[in-house]
Amino acid sequence: MTFSFDIHETDGAARRGTIHTPHGDIETPAFTPVGTAATVKTLTVGELKEINAPAVLSNTYHLYLRPGADLVEKHGGLGKFMGWDGPTITDSGGFQVFSLGFGLEHGVSKISNIFPDEDVPERRISKKKLMKVDDEGVSFVSHLDGSKHRFTAESSVQIQQQIGADIILAFDECTSPLHDERYTAQALERTHAWAQRSREAWTNRDAQALYGIVQGGAYRNLREQSAKFISDLDFPGYAIGGSLGRNKQDMYDILDWTTPLLNQAKPRHLLGIGEIADLFAGSARGMDTFDCVAPTRMARNGAVYIRPESGGTSENKFRLNVAAAKYKDDSDPIDPRCTCSTCNNHSRAYVRHLFNANEMTGMTLATIHNLHFILTLMADIRGAIEQQSLRQLATEWGVETVLP
Amino acid sequence: MTFSFDIHETDGAARRGTIHTPHGDIETPAFTPVGTAATVKTLTVGELKEINAPAVLSNTYHLYLRPGADLVEKHGGLGKFMGWDGPTITDSGGFQVFSLGFGLEHGVSKISNIFPDEDVPERRISKKKLMKVDDEGVSFVSHLDGSKHRFTAESSVQIQQQIGADIILAFDECTSPLHDERYTAQALERTHAWAQRSREAWTNRDAQALYGIVQGGAYRNLREQSAKFISDLDFPGYAIGGSLGRNKQDMYDILDWTTPLLNQAKPRHLLGIGEIADLFAGSARGMDTFDCVAPTRMARNGAVYIRPESGGTSENKFRLNVAAAKYKDDSDPIDPRCTCSTCNNHSRAYVRHLFNANEMTGMTLATIHNLHFILTLMADIRGAIEQQSLRQLATEWGVETVLP
Repeated sequence: MTFSFDIHETDGAARRGTIHTPHGDIETPAFTPVGTAATVKTLTVGELKEINAPAVLSNTYHLYLRPGADLVEKHGGLGKFMGWDGPTITDSGGFQVFSLGFGLEHGVSKISNIFPDEDVPERRISKKKLMKVDDEGVSFVSHLDGSKHRFTAESSVQIQQQIGADIILAFDECTSPLHDERYTAQALERTHAWAQRSREAWTNRDAQALYGIVQGGAYRNLREQSAKFISDLDFPGYAIGGSLGRNKQDMYDILDWTTPLLNQAKPRHLLGIGEIADLFAGSARGMDTFDCVAPTRMARNGAVYIRPESGGTSENKFRLNVAAAKYKDDSDPIDPRCTCSTCNNHSRAYVRHLFNANEMTGMTLATIHNLHFILTLMADIRGAIEQQSLRQLATEWGVETVLP
Repeated sequence: MTFSFDIHETDGAARRGTIHTPHGDIETPAFTPVGTAATVKTLTVGELKEINAPAVLSNTYHLYLRPGADLVEKHGGLGKFMGWDGPTITDSGGFQVFSLGFGLEHGVSKISNIFPDEDVPERRISKKKLMKVDDEGVSFVSHLDGSKHRFTAESSVQIQQQIGADIILAFDECTSPLHDERYTAQALERTHAWAQRSREAWTNRDAQALYGIVQGGAYRNLREQSAKFISDLDFPGYAIGGSLGRNKQDMYDILDWTTPLLNQAKPRHLLGIGEIADLFAGSARGMDTFDCVAPTRMARNGAVYIRPESGGTSENKFRLNVAAAKYKDDSDPIDPRCTCSTCNNHSRAYVRHLFNANEMTGMTLATIHNLHFILTLMADIRGAIEQQSLRQLATEWGVETVLP
């Protein structure tokens, strides 16, 4: 097995490590840009390399529907297909399928973010569920063309083996924060059965590492039960998934309950989380990798990150809207302390002009900045863990209250 | 004056030269990518450098309306504003204003291409003229918001001096191929008066080179009269503009009539022309620089260039539509002989997938390819002129019939 994980240093629960994959090492804690449809939106692979992206996470649901797992496999798998020679990750499709179901029905606010990278036709975002769960798997309707499909633990793993990412995820049922304990427990039972079945279906063990997913909503007993169960299955790594509660504190609690119960020698991924405070909170609780569409999706709307020295605070979420008229004559770069190519070459006035003129290049420049910014923050977090100064770094960012 | 032009070699009427500008040299014959609104659509300046773009041509009409010449000037001029340290060119605005006038009224087919880079709301593309010419200048209505504006020779030059490109153009009236000789002659008289007035308004002579524009429609006597008149005004360079007739032969005739009458020591720009056969035809007739939105606009629609060895012919205009379903499983790069980063990294299947999934990166990859392709062709044309083998190169491309 060409997959392994080393921990070099710790700082409290935080770990400074290296995940070794067949396509290179991921220095952890790491943030993984999301490339839903086998591309990080608006960027080329050259730009991904320029910002030192450690890996790319793509969505199985999207690739399965378009261009299809067969086609990706035929063209050498996800990395070869997209021209990216670094590590790759796929999710299991469970989260996207969830979003077609209870997510829509419950009108959960996060739902509007679930297809951030797709233009879901309004008529399809009805309150009608587009999926149905049973103990065997999930039947669902494509958001692209209304065609009918079905995922099971076996087919999800089979599809992910065809797509061929270095790290793949067990199939799970993702519940909504509005589900009660009874339903969440039933769903968790399915998720655990699917975890075992995913593990059995996983045949490509030399090339791909399968992570088990811890679920259980915001219920402590269920989360603890899940962490023990998934840890016992001896996956190469773990992911914490699903509803992470109704507020930040719920999420921190979920991490505090679960991480002590996981095999400490294995890497842990926090699914779909990537706000700046959350990256501190997760790293401090021993999460090793993160993915989130926020930095790229926000960039395409003109919301760009600024460091504390440049005016970033928890209150403004460390960002400004560079598309706003107030920046039309601002000759500073987005963040004067930033060393990305956008900030090296361009003023806020220029980037604002591009957004104002509907020039796609504006989205590209903002995406380069936001990803470079988050990846630089992760490098700072890694450096801080090496020197046992993560708390000091969090204090410099004004987010020390999110630490355990 | 920091602007000069050297001719190193000739091959028939074709010239191999260097235009020296305050922001670097342009090796000629050269193709200039168009960056209408101070950006080459979908590209970063890093990508422009990667493909060795010799210069960027921006549109005065667009920059004047958005973000405004004052703002561009305040931020150091076009090059500094867009983060591009190479040579820059602006047109005079005459052509865009023309397109708001007789172009619309005459329903000239080229008109649909005149705002290639803008989404002109349908309701504004009525048959109603949006501009009015008089001997002093042109009053027009903004296609963005319907506001009223006026360009004169003096204001066009003044605006271009604010924008600060290395090469700027005299203000001219661009006629339609449907204008009769009488109207075209009247318009030419205005264009000549405006050329003189543009020359007088041009005060920034050390920093910017003003080109005079030869007009006269497809009428031989008017074109010859114009070439003599404009040449006598002793501009640092010339542009051949306006209606270039109803077919390719008309355009070749116009070049054949005019170029012998221009001062042979000055550089000549062919405005808005950039199809592959036309680059051969123009270079062979002594044109030194070209600009055209075709390579970038086509790229955004998936139309990408292929060399003769890869199946490109005059009939298919040396291109294929990589967004077409027939390429969905094609593992070849767009052009197997191409050395651009798109062809080095990606298959047609991948680029096709990006177009199919509405991923902007597809447009970026196609734009990089098309510009790299045209710039490589221009380098080949320069090499051929140096060796007096332009005819042979044209034969290899199957376009020898367009040579004089």
